[in-house]
Formats: sequence, C-alpha cells, structure tokens
Amino acid sequence: MPNRAQPILFMNVLTAYMAQELPRINQTLHDVTCDLEPEVLPLVEHVLKAGGKRIRPLLTILMARAMGYTKDDIYPMAVAVELLHSASLLHDDILDNAKLRRGAKAAHVVYGNSHAILGGDILFALANKIAASYQVPALTHSLAQAIMHTATGEIKEIALLRDPHITRRQYLDIITGKTAYLIQVACQCGAIIAGGDTKAITNAKAFGLNLGIAFQIVDDALDYTSTAKVSGKPLGGDLREGKFTLPLVLYLQTITPEKRTMVMAKLAKNALTDQELGVIIKEIQELKLDIKTRDEAGTFLDLATTTLAPLPQCPEKEVLISFIDFVLHRNK
Amino acid sequence: MPNRAQPILFMNVLTAYMAQELPRINQTLHDVTCDLEPEVLPLVEHVLKAGGKRIRPLLTILMARAMGYTKDDIYPMAVAVELLHSASLLHDDILDNAKLRRGAKAAHVVYGNSHAILGGDILFALANKIAASYQVPALTHSLAQAIMHTATGEIKEIALLRDPHITRRQYLDIITGKTAYLIQVACQCGAIIAGGDTKAITNAKAFGLNLGIAFQIVDDALDYTSTAKVSGKPLGGDLREGKFTLPLVLYLQTITPEKRTMVMAKLAKNALTDQELGVIIKEIQELKLDIKTRDEAGTFLDLATTTLAPLPQCPEKEVLISFIDFVLHRNK
Repeated sequence: MPNRAQPILFMNVLTAYMAQELPRINQTLHDVTCDLEPEVLPLVEHVLKAGGKRIRPLLTILMARAMGYTKDDIYPMAVAVELLHSASLLHDDILDNAKLRRGAKAAHVVYGNSHAILGGDILFALANKIAASYQVPALTHSLAQAIMHTATGEIKEIALLRDPHITRRQYLDIITGKTAYLIQVACQCGAIIAGGDTKAITNAKAFGLNLGIAFQIVDDALDYTSTAKVSGKPLGGDLREGKFTLPLVLYLQTITPEKRTMVMAKLAKNALTDQELGVIIKEIQELKLDIKTRDEAGTFLDLATTTLAPLPQCPEKEVLISFIDFVLHRNK
Repeated sequence: MPNRAQPILFMNVLTAYMAQELPRINQTLHDVTCDLEPEVLPLVEHVLKAGGKRIRPLLTILMARAMGYTKDDIYPMAVAVELLHSASLLHDDILDNAKLRRGAKAAHVVYGNSHAILGGDILFALANKIAASYQVPALTHSLAQAIMHTATGEIKEIALLRDPHITRRQYLDIITGKTAYLIQVACQCGAIIAGGDTKAITNAKAFGLNLGIAFQIVDDALDYTSTAKVSGKPLGGDLREGKFTLPLVLYLQTITPEKRTMVMAKLAKNALTDQELGVIIKEIQELKLDIKTRDEAGTFLDLATTTLAPLPQCPEKEVLISFIDFVLHRNK
C-alpha cells in the first residue's frame, strides 16, 4: 500500500505529471473534434470544455509509458476513452434529468435532449473511429465491451432506483458497470498499445477495474459531503434521486429498526420532505459514514496496488501509485 | 436500367432471395443478442421483433456473394448493420416523439426514454464488437463513419425543422446523412469482407449511397400516400412534424404565391389545423406529387444501376438489380 500518512507528497507527483500532460491531452481533444459539422461542434465543445479531470486519458498514457511505450501516437487513443466518457455523460444527464455538470449547465439543458442524444452517438462513433485507425482490432473490441458494460450498469441502476432492499453485491455490480469498466478500458488500451502480453493486459485491466470501483465509491461518499461549489453537483443529489449508494446503505444499517422502516418506506415512495432529506444528510455526516465509505474504497485500492507490482520501477509507476492515493483522498 | 414495365417479375427475384435468407438473418440476430443482460434483452427483442424489412443485412450478403464470397461468416457482419439501424431507430423515435414503429408501440413508449437511450447505446456497441471480431479494422472504421453521418444528418434535420426556406440541396444532404450512409455501409462491409479492391469497394459504396437516397425519397413520398395500416406510420406524419420533405417542397412550388406565403407562414409556426393539414395531404395526392417524387428517386437509381455493371453475371447481381426496382415501386 502507498503511505496514506503522506497524501500530499503522492498527490504532488500526480499533479506534476498531469500538469505536464494536460495541454497535450486537451490539444488532441481539440484536434480530433474540430472537423465535426457546425451543427454538432458547439455541443461537443460545451461538453469537453466543461473540463473534467481527464483521468481516463491520463491512465491510458501512464499505463502505456509504464510498460515502456514511448511513441506520441498514444494521445488519440487516450482521448478516445475521454470521448466515450463524455458521450456517456451526455446521455446520463438526460436520464438523470441533471441540470448541472461540473458546475456548468448540462448540455441537454443548453442544446436540448435531441442534440444531446445524437451528440453522444457521434462521440461514441468518433471514439471507435479513432480506435479503428490503430489497425489493432483488440482496441475497438475493448471499447465496445466497455460501452456495453457501462450502459448495462446504468440500466441496472435505474431498475433498482428507490428499491431499499438493494444488496451490497447489487450496489457493487451497478458501480462496476457504470464507472469502473470505462476506467478499466483506459488502462487496458494503454497496455494493448504498449504491446503487453496477456498477463500484462490482465493486470492493467485489474488495476483499472479496482481503481474505478474505488473511484465511484469515493464519488458516492462525496455526494454527501461536497457542496456544489466544490464538486459542481448539489449536495445529497443521489439521495434526492433515490439512489441507494453505500453511505445510505450504511446509514440504514446504523439507525434503529423503527426509524429504518420509516425512512425506507418514504424513500421508496419519494415522500421525504426537503427537511427530512437534510436531516439524513446531516446524520450521515455526523456518523462519519462518508469516511467509512472511503474505507471500503481502500479494499479495492489495495487490490489495485497489488497489480502494479510486476511493472518496472519508473516515474510512471510512481504516478500510478500516487493515483491510488488521489482516488482515496480526493475531495471533488 | 431495369425494365420498369415489369416490376412484379423483378420483385419476385428479390422476394425469393429474401425468403431464402430471412430465417438465417433472424437466427443470427437472435444468436448475437441472446446473451444480453435480462434488464436489456426485452427492449432489444421488442425492437428486433417489430420486424422491418431487413434490407440492410440482405444488401451486405448480396454484395459479398455477388463479389464471389461464399463463406457463412458473412451473417454476423450483415446483422451488425441491422443492429446499428435498430439503435438509430431507438434514438430517433425519442427525438421525434414517435408513438408507433412499424405498427407496434415504439420502444421508448413501452420501456421509457432512459431504457431506449441506453438500449440504443448497447446496440451501437454490440455492432462494433461484432465488426471488431472480424479483425479487419476497415469494417469498424466504416461503421463508425456511418454512425457519425447518420447522427449528423438527424441533427441537421432537426435544425431545419419548420424552416420553409430549405433548399433541395439541404433536403438531399439531410436524407443522405440520416438514411443513405447506413445503407451505403451495408454494401461497403459486404465488399470489404469479400476482399474487394479499392475500385470494387468504391462501387459498392456508390451503389448503397444512391440506393439509400432513393429509398428515403420514396419513403418521403409514401408518407403522403400510405396509411398506418400499410406502413405502420400515420399518414402525413412528416408534414405534422414540420419536416420539409420533397413532396412538400414540390407542393410549395406548385401552388399560387399567395397560398404559398400563407402555408409557409403557418408551417413555420406549427399553426395549421388538422383540417388544413388534411387538405394539403389531399392536394399533394391529387397533384400526383408523390409520383413526381418517386421520379426524382429514379435519377439516383439510375446511378446505382451503373455501379453494378462491373459485377460478374450471377444470381446475386440479378437480385441487386431487382432491389433497385423494389425501392422504386415499394408501397410500404
């Protein structure tokens, strides 16, 4: 495990590497999208300019470099995964009827649902087109698998909305689908381009999958602690939408059976008042269930750490290790 | 040109070939989708069972066979294009808020918009996964291009809704995007799998593109003449939605300037009453503008016919020729 007593140090390694790579990542995102038709481009620019942490392209680059790949042609593949992620967000925000994305108005609010649906389709296709240009069918195959897993995870999440009997297993199944597979594919594509053997690709996938699960668990913790000012999303949004994420599951296990029955019934019927929602959020914070949730993320980060062992010592391996600490300690 | 005085004869060649291939096409559609997760499968089966003419997979098979390809592995690629088409329909029906699809309830009406958006994403990805399994990057690249063109065509169509100043060029640009590129890619993938050279692939693309443009022109004619009972869609649906398709463009050129100004203003504002809409539909029929529209399709079918010349004489070439006649004479 990385030394969790020194998160700042580890984050600096990551921050420095990100600062070095970000201009090239953003330039490549511009290069691959600037020829889109004028009816499509503004929406795509809106989504991409809203920012985001670009952690997926960074992971593709890091994994390829850590496996000894030095060529510059890694960048288009790296941003292809970011395009998939953006496409997925475009469609998600419609499903969730989310008004904000990273603090800015969601694309479907500005451009309408039709544009957002079709814009997402175009970004999915553009990502596949970029992957196909590498003439390595495993890349396209991996992207296709990731999209199928992601969309299926989202369908499962919708099917289990406001179902208070959701199990821990189902919760993990949902977040693995909707978040972790896309982070897995970022690492996987880096390993494929670097020419890794089956064992190396399996390790890269396992790193991405576990990192991705932990990333989403921490995201679900942040939903109860981070305000719109920091995260760009409203506090307790998951609770309001009826998503039974880990902090809420832990909360229901903590309160008295009588209270649990009442809260579960109201959650199932979407009958909690704003005041009652506020009380639940406050109690989850006071019980430090966000911290307990982060601790659960640690289990998956330990698994991710193990998969890095076979990589040779190199700056990128250090950054991948610091990535694990970033996921655990991030506050937005 | 095929002998248009004998459409029945030509259609019989096509009908017989379709009858021969349809069971295998439908079986392959079942085989490639049956492992989808239970949360996704019912919606996918709903879309695929609604039927459709399966002209896209048939074109992939015909083009490959006409170029001498005899292997059975053509079927998954053939149905991949049908999956793209189905994905596109899933998203389209949400955009158009269409309640019916091929006479049955549209998927988003039965399963909700969220399922329909995500189900479309899954079918797009599944098509790409199938294409990637051939280990021929040109296949995935072609599919990605086709999806981008299709979605862009739809965005352009939405941007020009209720714009009475739409030009013939813009109309053709829209239908080329939203329909023809997907029919082009069906033919293109057949030629690629058959190992065609650049010239043969270019010809296959040109055949598909021109056939696809004609197919949509005839579709736009049918919208003014074919009732829900025959086509599965309501009569005059395009007019009601504010789509300026060719019959309406021709109608506006035919009526007096005073009437044109009135109709254009009301169309732009969506202010036509049901009675007024009924009168326009009736006048378009009486002026035989649906037949004039079909004549325009003939120009593109002539171009499609030319591209078939280099193919060797074989049963599949005859069926491709009969396909041209089917597109011109179809009544649903």
